[in-house]
Amino acid sequence: MDALAVRKGEHEPSVIDIPEPVPGEGEALVRTLRVGVDGTDREVLEGGHGEFPADEEYLVLGHEAVGVVEDPNGTEYEAGDVVVPTVRRPPNGENEYFERGEPDMAPEGEYHERGIVGAHGFMAEYFTSPAEYLVRIPDEQAPLGFLIEPISITEKALDHAYASRSAFEWNPESAAVLGNGSLGLLTLATFVHTHPFERTYCVGRRDRPDPTIEIIEGLGATYVDSRETPVDELSREHEGMDLVYEATGYAKHAFQTIDALAPNGVGALLGVPGPWEFEIDGGTLHEELVLHNKALVGSVNSHVGHFEGASDTLGSLPEEFLDSLVTGVHGLDDWEAAFADDDTTIKTAVEFAAYEER
Amino acid sequence: MDALAVRKGEHEPSVIDIPEPVPGEGEALVRTLRVGVDGTDREVLEGGHGEFPADEEYLVLGHEAVGVVEDPNGTEYEAGDVVVPTVRRPPNGENEYFERGEPDMAPEGEYHERGIVGAHGFMAEYFTSPAEYLVRIPDEQAPLGFLIEPISITEKALDHAYASRSAFEWNPESAAVLGNGSLGLLTLATFVHTHPFERTYCVGRRDRPDPTIEIIEGLGATYVDSRETPVDELSREHEGMDLVYEATGYAKHAFQTIDALAPNGVGALLGVPGPWEFEIDGGTLHEELVLHNKALVGSVNSHVGHFEGASDTLGSLPEEFLDSLVTGVHGLDDWEAAFADDDTTIKTAVEFAAYEER
Repeated sequence: MDALAVRKGEHEPSVIDIPEPVPGEGEALVRTLRVGVDGTDREVLEGGHGEFPADEEYLVLGHEAVGVVEDPNGTEYEAGDVVVPTVRRPPNGENEYFERGEPDMAPEGEYHERGIVGAHGFMAEYFTSPAEYLVRIPDEQAPLGFLIEPISITEKALDHAYASRSAFEWNPESAAVLGNGSLGLLTLATFVHTHPFERTYCVGRRDRPDPTIEIIEGLGATYVDSRETPVDELSREHEGMDLVYEATGYAKHAFQTIDALAPNGVGALLGVPGPWEFEIDGGTLHEELVLHNKALVGSVNSHVGHFEGASDTLGSLPEEFLDSLVTGVHGLDDWEAAFADDDTTIKTAVEFAAYEER
Repeated sequence: MDALAVRKGEHEPSVIDIPEPVPGEGEALVRTLRVGVDGTDREVLEGGHGEFPADEEYLVLGHEAVGVVEDPNGTEYEAGDVVVPTVRRPPNGENEYFERGEPDMAPEGEYHERGIVGAHGFMAEYFTSPAEYLVRIPDEQAPLGFLIEPISITEKALDHAYASRSAFEWNPESAAVLGNGSLGLLTLATFVHTHPFERTYCVGRRDRPDPTIEIIEGLGATYVDSRETPVDELSREHEGMDLVYEATGYAKHAFQTIDALAPNGVGALLGVPGPWEFEIDGGTLHEELVLHNKALVGSVNSHVGHFEGASDTLGSLPEEFLDSLVTGVHGLDDWEAAFADDDTTIKTAVEFAAYEER
């Protein structure tokens, strides 16, 4: 079967031919429909993130998949079920995190990530997965089911951020998303449509006219150009934010977030930058965290419950927003277009098979 | 009556004579027994923290008080009840934070703090307080009831830190306290006697022999000299900490805590440093927060529920520890000794009246 992979020593995807996988006990065989492309895929290609599977000369790409069960193989699924796979798998037998259904909390070395760390991804005509790592979604979500994995990342981060504010009565009204990439925009739409915020902001660094600014304003949020208003000026220029969601991977934002927060606010951190030394006014930031009861919460990956929540969230996002977010779905013969990274590309996917309604 | 106060323009306490307070409606009159001295009192004296009451030339010191109800004045108390007052008061009528019993979550400008910000403290022979800001404690806690306010600070910080880990199954085993001042030692004792940690550490910068190191080791904890093992080396030299409690006010510790944490760990920040610019590897710290699901939670002050919890905690701390912690209780004629700040002084209090059992 065809697969889209990166070979060792290369930094571009290649279409390769690999054997169709055979499901083991407790595993289902899934026919891949679409697989989304995101920044992590680009980091994997650049070689700055991830790891090839042991004894393999290539890594099949892709971790944002949606597919249709082809062979349930005795699992709880039926042929034709539309499913989304979670990303993490236990590396050497189960461990406590996987046993309790929280693979997202496993530390390094205690997980593989399909398409990223030590395990092949989903950019192939078929994949297999243990039934417990598949999430059934409504048939009508088949076309955009590849958005469920990125939304699940937001579900998990917000789950943890809200938990950090659960020891007191927290009535958040304002929220800012740092970053207007596809994850930032999906999160902003979630804030607008499924959260109680009265005022939302999205921080980017793009000139008008720009399709992401149109989406931001179409959602009723305020676009903030960080070249004019740096993140640590947000509270002075606009207002202190009850919640800041960092989706830029720009390390200074993690610390500027402390200034951007309103008293009793929380910053959810999502980015994964590399080493970078810079100066901060650590004394003032420390004091600000304490005197105003602020919190910073880092979050990575997500578990089955977050995928289920993400499917609900996807169902509540307006079609118009989703149409403008997904700028291209490309067949395997046109995969280059799905990996393009320019100002008109927001969210793309590679299509491996068309969905046929049952 | 006699009171211990700081006059405007001075940096040392003075014994002054002020009128005995008269309780208003809903207020009780309390005879002060003892008032603890801590680092905040020293900061108030130095002028780096706090604010004089409006139109006053002096501030009565002290926020860690225990007393006996002298005149209940129609409130729910009885004469002879042993009580501890909370610290924050609404500045101009009630506001939402006080209304819902969470004055500790009020931002700057929305509270006074008795003995610190804009309101007289408890270092006087009598004080009055609205009944709702008094917490009744067992009679036998009268001698050491001045420890309840500092313990309540820890109760609140841990309440918020644990909440931040409530979205997943968190089974903490290791905890480190940064700082071996009286708050650090009280917190360490709390960790040992009322928390599930299997291994505890306390970080200081003292040479042996030293009474605080004796207390740390007497509690069964490991003393770490930060001159040999900096906080960001804790996880390499000892182990990653599931919980770090920062009680040094040293701003670099707030950020080194991120390195000191185990995956999924939380740092509770308590210190209030001033501005201080320094360099950090912000990229690596940001990545570490995210990839290992870590959190930092700032916390200030506490509310009635935390004072009640603190009274329970005080009841479970061993007498031997408390005896070694409280190095001096001094009458008003010897107040200088209570404000001494040397290596043999750990926790002190000023006594305004002896407790007479009822």
